[in-house]
Amino acid sequence: MPTARAYATPSAKAPFEKMDIERRDPGPRDVLIKIAFCGICHSDIHTGRNEWGEAHFPLVPGHEIAGTVEAVGSDVTDFSIGDRVGVGCMVDSCRECENCKAGEEQYCLNGNVGTYNAVGKDGKWTDGGYSSHIVVDQDFVLRIPDGIELDEAAPLLCAGITLYSPLKHWGAGPGKKVAIVGMGGLGHVGVKIAAALGADVTVLSSSLSKEDDGLRFGANHYYATKDESTFEKLAGSFDLIVNTVSAHLPMDKYLSLLRLNGTLVNVGAPAEPLEVPAFALIPMRRSWAGSMIGGIRETQEMLDFCAEHGIGAEVERIRGEQIDTAWDRVVDSDVRYRFVIDTSTF
Amino acid sequence: MPTARAYATPSAKAPFEKMDIERRDPGPRDVLIKIAFCGICHSDIHTGRNEWGEAHFPLVPGHEIAGTVEAVGSDVTDFSIGDRVGVGCMVDSCRECENCKAGEEQYCLNGNVGTYNAVGKDGKWTDGGYSSHIVVDQDFVLRIPDGIELDEAAPLLCAGITLYSPLKHWGAGPGKKVAIVGMGGLGHVGVKIAAALGADVTVLSSSLSKEDDGLRFGANHYYATKDESTFEKLAGSFDLIVNTVSAHLPMDKYLSLLRLNGTLVNVGAPAEPLEVPAFALIPMRRSWAGSMIGGIRETQEMLDFCAEHGIGAEVERIRGEQIDTAWDRVVDSDVRYRFVIDTSTF
Repeated sequence: MPTARAYATPSAKAPFEKMDIERRDPGPRDVLIKIAFCGICHSDIHTGRNEWGEAHFPLVPGHEIAGTVEAVGSDVTDFSIGDRVGVGCMVDSCRECENCKAGEEQYCLNGNVGTYNAVGKDGKWTDGGYSSHIVVDQDFVLRIPDGIELDEAAPLLCAGITLYSPLKHWGAGPGKKVAIVGMGGLGHVGVKIAAALGADVTVLSSSLSKEDDGLRFGANHYYATKDESTFEKLAGSFDLIVNTVSAHLPMDKYLSLLRLNGTLVNVGAPAEPLEVPAFALIPMRRSWAGSMIGGIRETQEMLDFCAEHGIGAEVERIRGEQIDTAWDRVVDSDVRYRFVIDTSTF
Repeated sequence: MPTARAYATPSAKAPFEKMDIERRDPGPRDVLIKIAFCGICHSDIHTGRNEWGEAHFPLVPGHEIAGTVEAVGSDVTDFSIGDRVGVGCMVDSCRECENCKAGEEQYCLNGNVGTYNAVGKDGKWTDGGYSSHIVVDQDFVLRIPDGIELDEAAPLLCAGITLYSPLKHWGAGPGKKVAIVGMGGLGHVGVKIAAALGADVTVLSSSLSKEDDGLRFGANHYYATKDESTFEKLAGSFDLIVNTVSAHLPMDKYLSLLRLNGTLVNVGAPAEPLEVPAFALIPMRRSWAGSMIGGIRETQEMLDFCAEHGIGAEVERIRGEQIDTAWDRVVDSDVRYRFVIDTSTF
């Protein structure tokens, strides 16, 4: 049974500890991956601090995984030793429901298996990417094209697909006006992808502090939402708004920015319900929707697209012992734009 | 200047009074319509009782108008004397904005002209269909096919298009599971139209008291929403839910009934915001949308569709002096399913 070095949080309020964990022996369809980098996603923190009330400790978080293949099972046909690969938020699904069959494993009706803090088909809790190695069924392993560095690729496995999927689903492209709300770990990748898709891209950020970056990432316009005139200026402007902010925003104001048939998509969510007047939706046949990562096929499509367009996440590399500090900084929005853990430091 | 007999409410709390009102002299593009029937829509009551705080008195409500052409202006080419015609919620729009040009005058960016309680391009307040005659620009006059009686056609001009438009927009048809929430004046027409479109139709009503009617109108299934097990049984079932209820429903429960990519459309709305958790939308890429009547072209399409499929509203005819009582009964949901005022009684 392969052993991996990992950083685990032993309880909701405890600092990370370095430890050895066991990975399963690779089965015939498994890929043993040597992890190079793992991104830090805000949901790692929500889970690890038990803010969602469902954490199983000790917890090894991490679902933005990039590395190389170290071994493959006898039936693995798609991957070879040395291949550059990634793993995202899922490591398995039922594969039988209509959503899985449609390639939308993220919406598996029987519950897919999360990369960490989930129970796999073997009955064991999954451990994520804050570790040196992971064993994953080949159907849930993604190929990282040569055009992207592994550290910049890692966050694409969650942040990238979380933005790519709704942008594609709701038709972001030439002639479409798209706004990205929030320019953090999710939003900054969304700006790059939306621009590469050919949309006219506006960033709606609380302030203008990241404006230069936003324009560099491909945005055409950048507005501060703390300036009330922004909502007057942009009323009825957008075909699509992707909201990456999990805070309790005044949804009626954001919905008023949509033109006829426009859609506002939440990819993050506050724990509490949002107050939305139906009259914010009715007058322009607006929609408010939600979206969650993407399927495996679409995640591969996203990686290929990003490689083709030279898109990677903007990352700050950290060492294993810096994870606690990095989590605090993520909570304080003090990162430009994604931390990736360099597992060679473990 | 043509004079019309009308029923007007002189103030928010006063009973209706019969009076003569003046209609404009028909211009070259105008159609003078002798009104036969006018439906009573709940929004007549909201407006007339000044619950929306914007009523101009004396008020002649009514935007579900069916009648015959009595005279036409010199440039009117589409209609002749004696033609069976209808008028819905709009009598004009800017005709220049992108939405008007797209045939979506109901979403006119400069504000369309409502059939009553609105200011027309001549600067005068519009009076609605609780009257013997009305003068309307030919572009906002609909043709009522011979296949529908005028009394059954009148409510289609608002209730019918309010349901037809979202059902068409969101693809109700063969292979689609559609739920209609509420089986009142709007909902009962929605059931008929959705069934005629070929969808698998479910009624979600507070009780089973109208089940026989619902099945007769074409519903395949009928569930009581006061029975909690309904929400368990139907979880993840529907491609489309059209919510005709303006009351403050628990939206998260209704959204949970949508399958992957499903949409819940509000065509009515409570005055207060609804509380909706984003987590009700995210897991199955659900959408919550709004829709408002339909454009003129689509309203004609709806009337032609209804005639072809033998669809009319279920109506109870009343005399002019019964309007006050009828309004109270509408508020009490004591009508099956739409009152129409017989203007020959004026």
